[in-house]
Amino acid sequence: MSLGTVFVSEVLGTAILLLLGCGVVANVALPRNNGTDGGPLMVNFGWGLAVFAGVYVAYKSGAHLNPAVTIGLLTQSLGTDGVTYAKGVEITAGSTLTYLSAELIGAFLGAVLCWLAYKKQFDERGEAGSLGVFSTGPQIKSTGWNLVTEAIGTFVLVFVIMAFGKTPAQLGPLAVALLVVAIGASLGGPTGYAINPARDLGPRIAHAVLPIPHKDDSNWGYAWVPVVGPIIGAVLAGLLASVYIA
Amino acid sequence: MSLGTVFVSEVLGTAILLLLGCGVVANVALPRNNGTDGGPLMVNFGWGLAVFAGVYVAYKSGAHLNPAVTIGLLTQSLGTDGVTYAKGVEITAGSTLTYLSAELIGAFLGAVLCWLAYKKQFDERGEAGSLGVFSTGPQIKSTGWNLVTEAIGTFVLVFVIMAFGKTPAQLGPLAVALLVVAIGASLGGPTGYAINPARDLGPRIAHAVLPIPHKDDSNWGYAWVPVVGPIIGAVLAGLLASVYIA
Amino acid sequence: MSLGTVFVSEVLGTAILLLLGCGVVANVALPRNNGTDGGPLMVNFGWGLAVFAGVYVAYKSGAHLNPAVTIGLLTQSLGTDGVTYAKGVEITAGSTLTYLSAELIGAFLGAVLCWLAYKKQFDERGEAGSLGVFSTGPQIKSTGWNLVTEAIGTFVLVFVIMAFGKTPAQLGPLAVALLVVAIGASLGGPTGYAINPARDLGPRIAHAVLPIPHKDDSNWGYAWVPVVGPIIGAVLAGLLASVYIA
Amino acid sequence: MSLGTVFVSEVLGTAILLLLGCGVVANVALPRNNGTDGGPLMVNFGWGLAVFAGVYVAYKSGAHLNPAVTIGLLTQSLGTDGVTYAKGVEITAGSTLTYLSAELIGAFLGAVLCWLAYKKQFDERGEAGSLGVFSTGPQIKSTGWNLVTEAIGTFVLVFVIMAFGKTPAQLGPLAVALLVVAIGASLGGPTGYAINPARDLGPRIAHAVLPIPHKDDSNWGYAWVPVVGPIIGAVLAGLLASVYIA
Repeated sequence: MSLGTVFVSEVLGTAILLLLGCGVVANVALPRNNGTDGGPLMVNFGWGLAVFAGVYVAYKSGAHLNPAVTIGLLTQSLGTDGVTYAKGVEITAGSTLTYLSAELIGAFLGAVLCWLAYKKQFDERGEAGSLGVFSTGPQIKSTGWNLVTEAIGTFVLVFVIMAFGKTPAQLGPLAVALLVVAIGASLGGPTGYAINPARDLGPRIAHAVLPIPHKDDSNWGYAWVPVVGPIIGAVLAGLLASVYIA
Repeated sequence: MSLGTVFVSEVLGTAILLLLGCGVVANVALPRNNGTDGGPLMVNFGWGLAVFAGVYVAYKSGAHLNPAVTIGLLTQSLGTDGVTYAKGVEITAGSTLTYLSAELIGAFLGAVLCWLAYKKQFDERGEAGSLGVFSTGPQIKSTGWNLVTEAIGTFVLVFVIMAFGKTPAQLGPLAVALLVVAIGASLGGPTGYAINPARDLGPRIAHAVLPIPHKDDSNWGYAWVPVVGPIIGAVLAGLLASVYIA
Repeated sequence: MSLGTVFVSEVLGTAILLLLGCGVVANVALPRNNGTDGGPLMVNFGWGLAVFAGVYVAYKSGAHLNPAVTIGLLTQSLGTDGVTYAKGVEITAGSTLTYLSAELIGAFLGAVLCWLAYKKQFDERGEAGSLGVFSTGPQIKSTGWNLVTEAIGTFVLVFVIMAFGKTPAQLGPLAVALLVVAIGASLGGPTGYAINPARDLGPRIAHAVLPIPHKDDSNWGYAWVPVVGPIIGAVLAGLLASVYIA
Repeated sequence: MSLGTVFVSEVLGTAILLLLGCGVVANVALPRNNGTDGGPLMVNFGWGLAVFAGVYVAYKSGAHLNPAVTIGLLTQSLGTDGVTYAKGVEITAGSTLTYLSAELIGAFLGAVLCWLAYKKQFDERGEAGSLGVFSTGPQIKSTGWNLVTEAIGTFVLVFVIMAFGKTPAQLGPLAVALLVVAIGASLGGPTGYAINPARDLGPRIAHAVLPIPHKDDSNWGYAWVPVVGPIIGAVLAGLLASVYIA
């Protein structure tokens, strides 16, 4: 498969993921929506099913949708023969950069689409913040422990995905969707479970550049945590997988 | 397959969809129900599983249940060879009109059945409105942005459905059901996610003609938005699919 | 298969169904539970997944668990060749009575098990009623319309089950579980969706005979409605299926 | 398969189960989380999907994750030929002890990981208790009836799992996940559904040894109930399965 095809596939899939993922937060967190105050389980299902839809769309490229998945596979490949990014996509510097850039661009585009879908709610939201629709933040700020939480959540995501192939079922994208519901419900409390550097950084850039009225700060001081934490978790998952699953 | 069979199949399936879909709104929104104030996630699951049941029933005709699906396939067929409405149903003017009319009639009948199931709740609902059980409306009225929201939601619905066949799984109608839960949770906030012209127009006609006590207005001024918005989204999905998925 | 095997299988499966089904109502409706006030969506999922578990257990007999399913198949068989109650179980007066009696006895036993699991909550429930854990009742009493609601709900249940085989998927008992979630969320508002004569009558008998402190009335005046309504719906579903699905 | 592989597999899978399972309780029960006050259905889905993830990870050893499953199979094997703990793992004293010890150690480790993920929430939780995140306890203390509730819940878990193979579907770990959601929603009210001795005892040990600020009592007086109750239920399930399912 050409890297151009990989790029388009990952952009489209990640855009759908972020459109629906940021969308459920907008629905619950912004006033004057049908889902206003719908609660955390609705947010967890919304994000999980956002992955469900995104995975179908990015079928050509194995649907990483997440640099943590890409980096996890890269790490696993160091200790295991035969690992690829997708059927017909070898692990190279070029393919790695293609995935990472497409994921980030797709995440940015999805967040912009979410803003368009909720344009009036953003315009007339009164006292409600706007950054929380786009990006994650800690409930209790603590750089070290926030990193730990993100690393643990991402470890679970990447490691369990790597185990999927060993228990055949016909769930398709539903398996990863439910895994994301699980991680959100179980480990999303302290930091909002970025567990995906692109999912956090792409929308944060969108938040910074979009003309949202009386916009709150984009909180760039925290922005590296949901990038580095997931990378740590993904590397640990890849290492364990290369020993345990391979 | 005969167009008569297509007609009956789509009428039955769309009627089940609207019976259950309007039903969950009646359960949550009308007083004196077991589901009163059950919240938005219950509504999202109710609509998604309404699609689940409707798809099983309309198995003979490919279970469009939605003019946006019909129009999306029609659009896709302009750029792609071999697209049909269902196994054994070619895309023609006659089959197109059969689907569209059956979807609308089925939606009308389903809404009437919902009214029968909730007859006493409609009769004794006090201050509660009734149109909201039947048809969608905007939380913040803005014709242009309401169209955008409906177009984006329908684009996701139709485009992801078109991608389903590329990732084999054995979920059957559950895949589209979960996709509808996703769209409802994530994009249903501003306009109530018609994402289906028949789903909105058929019940609106039912609302207009049924003898509901102290009935509120059927809001015909808004009625074209959940028809045109989904059509725009379906055409865009069909165009992109003819390039990306075909 | 012997009718004795059918009997045991249906007793066990229906007992599991009622244990879990009454259980979720006990959890939500009785004070001093972890699920107290868990809301209607929790009740809907609880009943749906109760069916899920019961179907697995009653695998030997086709898992009717519900006289409406038995009667629906009986009706369908009048107009369609080759209908059986399960693989190797012909439709006869003897097998029909075996299913019906086993379903009723299993439902009774399941309700007793639920009472045992929640014994302390029943004993110390204060002002809370107890019949609602066992059997259904109308939110607004109206014999005619309550019958209509139960008939419509049961029609959807039996008719969609009969359509399952036409859309192959590998969901197993999950399909009927989700259908029951759908009916509960969408049509359970007015009458509490018995949609199963045994589900209502068996636990009502249990309620009448169990030594529950300061017990409320078993409401025998209503008891025939959730028997007759579902039978009407099942007969209509069987008739339509013999024309449409056969 | 070597018992060392069994051990590692069960440790990893049970650790993931407890990390996510205790995690959802931490998210809902501790202050300053995104899931604070998310409600009982969120807890039920969290635990069910924790099983989902754990089963994938422990694929090498048949994913018991629970001494009740191990003991149920052991009991079933007394009356049935050909029962094993997993493909290639015979039932012996050595393999039994390997499963039981790995389950307990994994449960302990998972609880420690949960504490790390929620470290700041534990530190700054104010008046909230901490034991409830780790282990179960009765809403109404009554040793006999608490044992009954745990035995019934575990009986359902183990008996339905043993019936899974008789109704082929392609749900994989989703079937047991949904069964656990069902039991939690339906039978979790009185005692918090340990239904797994390791799930309760491992985290209780973790609670006792971890440096949690102003820690509440580990309630060792109750600790034997969620061990003995599940064992009783598992033995009963194994006995019935050896007659009914074998």
